[in-house]
Amino acid sequence: MSIAYYNGDFCDFSSVRIPLSDRSIFFGDGIYDAAIGKGGGIYLEKEHLDRFFSNAEKMNIPIKVKRNELSALIRKLISENGYEEYFIYMQLSRFGKARTHSYPDTEESNLLITVKEHTLPDPSNELKLITLPDIRYSMCDVKTLNLLPAVLASKKAEESGCDEAVFVRDGVVTECAHSNIHIIKHGVLYTHPNGKFILPGITRGRLLYFCQMLGIKTIEIPFTVSELYGADEVLVTSTTKLCQNATEIDGKTLQKSNSLVGKMLISALFEDFFKKVC
Amino acid sequence: MSIAYYNGDFCDFSSVRIPLSDRSIFFGDGIYDAAIGKGGGIYLEKEHLDRFFSNAEKMNIPIKVKRNELSALIRKLISENGYEEYFIYMQLSRFGKARTHSYPDTEESNLLITVKEHTLPDPSNELKLITLPDIRYSMCDVKTLNLLPAVLASKKAEESGCDEAVFVRDGVVTECAHSNIHIIKHGVLYTHPNGKFILPGITRGRLLYFCQMLGIKTIEIPFTVSELYGADEVLVTSTTKLCQNATEIDGKTLQKSNSLVGKMLISALFEDFFKKVC
Repeated sequence: MSIAYYNGDFCDFSSVRIPLSDRSIFFGDGIYDAAIGKGGGIYLEKEHLDRFFSNAEKMNIPIKVKRNELSALIRKLISENGYEEYFIYMQLSRFGKARTHSYPDTEESNLLITVKEHTLPDPSNELKLITLPDIRYSMCDVKTLNLLPAVLASKKAEESGCDEAVFVRDGVVTECAHSNIHIIKHGVLYTHPNGKFILPGITRGRLLYFCQMLGIKTIEIPFTVSELYGADEVLVTSTTKLCQNATEIDGKTLQKSNSLVGKMLISALFEDFFKKVC
Repeated sequence: MSIAYYNGDFCDFSSVRIPLSDRSIFFGDGIYDAAIGKGGGIYLEKEHLDRFFSNAEKMNIPIKVKRNELSALIRKLISENGYEEYFIYMQLSRFGKARTHSYPDTEESNLLITVKEHTLPDPSNELKLITLPDIRYSMCDVKTLNLLPAVLASKKAEESGCDEAVFVRDGVVTECAHSNIHIIKHGVLYTHPNGKFILPGITRGRLLYFCQMLGIKTIEIPFTVSELYGADEVLVTSTTKLCQNATEIDGKTLQKSNSLVGKMLISALFEDFFKKVC
């Protein structure tokens, strides 16, 4: 049992019912965001709400609730569910009575919020990755519901015994199916620059902040698959897992991994969560 | 009122309710097809069912009904709705209880079918087009529910007073937001070859068949925006409109249009519909 919210109603996740006027069903016509929290708090709430509202505006989807109302709704749902640690998911989708590609100008939209139990992984976890072609659209900076390429890649990763799929576009690593990826070489952290080919990950932003705090040089530049294979260390960041080391890519074990740099950054992010969320 | 079908139930379109275990809602994780018909018949039914089943297989979505059962379901829905001419829409989406990118191995899936009234446009209609960047994924040959780029382009076309958006990728015209596009120059029809950048349109296939029947030379090759502007004639094909002339692109009126070649092809397709559907 977990209580969800949809357009004014609170009910069990398995009882939520969506009408065909919700254009998520026909077109994936919507945006979403996700955050984690603990003890009633929401980690980096401002950043997640900023991105949610900004993506709604980019996709021209009206949002009826104000920021403080959305925050209150999420907090009410957290409280109703009563989990100690949780994953919060919010989705805004376009409203349209008939199935037409072009959409009506209306103030209506659909808001779905779910909360489920979530436990952060052990910070010392080591991920296995697989590289796959990045066939996604050129709008990866927006968290839309058009996620089929990420779905297919995640399934392939799972079938290969891996934890995540790394996307490769025109020879360079962009990001993973549902996380950002970074390499460390000779003490410098390299990461794909923001833009239309990657999501501006909130944990990615936090990682770069801690690099600055800890005096770790960062270069935002695309890197190749060979550079990924030859990295001293590979870090994967996401909302649900914060920051993890990857130690195997395409079946090859990284020669060095778990360096002091990586350990410092992983610790910084986990400590940040526990400090900021309470 | 129009009667729709969802997972075993027949009810009014506005009363259909979709549970969150239908992954169309979170990921656009599904495929679809659409056909038109008249007097109880379905135009090019075999081709549409072939493509629907083939796309389900490509996306690894199980389909519980057999071909003849799906055909019978569609025909029952046509009969329940009682329209003389209609548009048939069928959608198959993946089933999954929880929202996880990777999907469970299950025999379950969700089948939605809708029928609405539809009238073919006048064959002498002339379309206005607008060119827009093709930001879509590299899987345009599969009719999936990841349609947001087509949605945004269709809205832009509408706002510009146009009927359709023409996608341009790396300098070449691929297809339109929800139709294929072809140019005629010196009596030869040019069209983008099938592959990952366009949908293998069923009406497009029928157009090429009639070119062959009528002795019109066809070349399947990408063409540029300049070649589009300089075409003798531009034809747009889709399931719902069959074949139409476009006479204005990006505000520029085509110098020649409505040539004998275009007229012959448009007539052939409209006659084909009335002959084949009955």
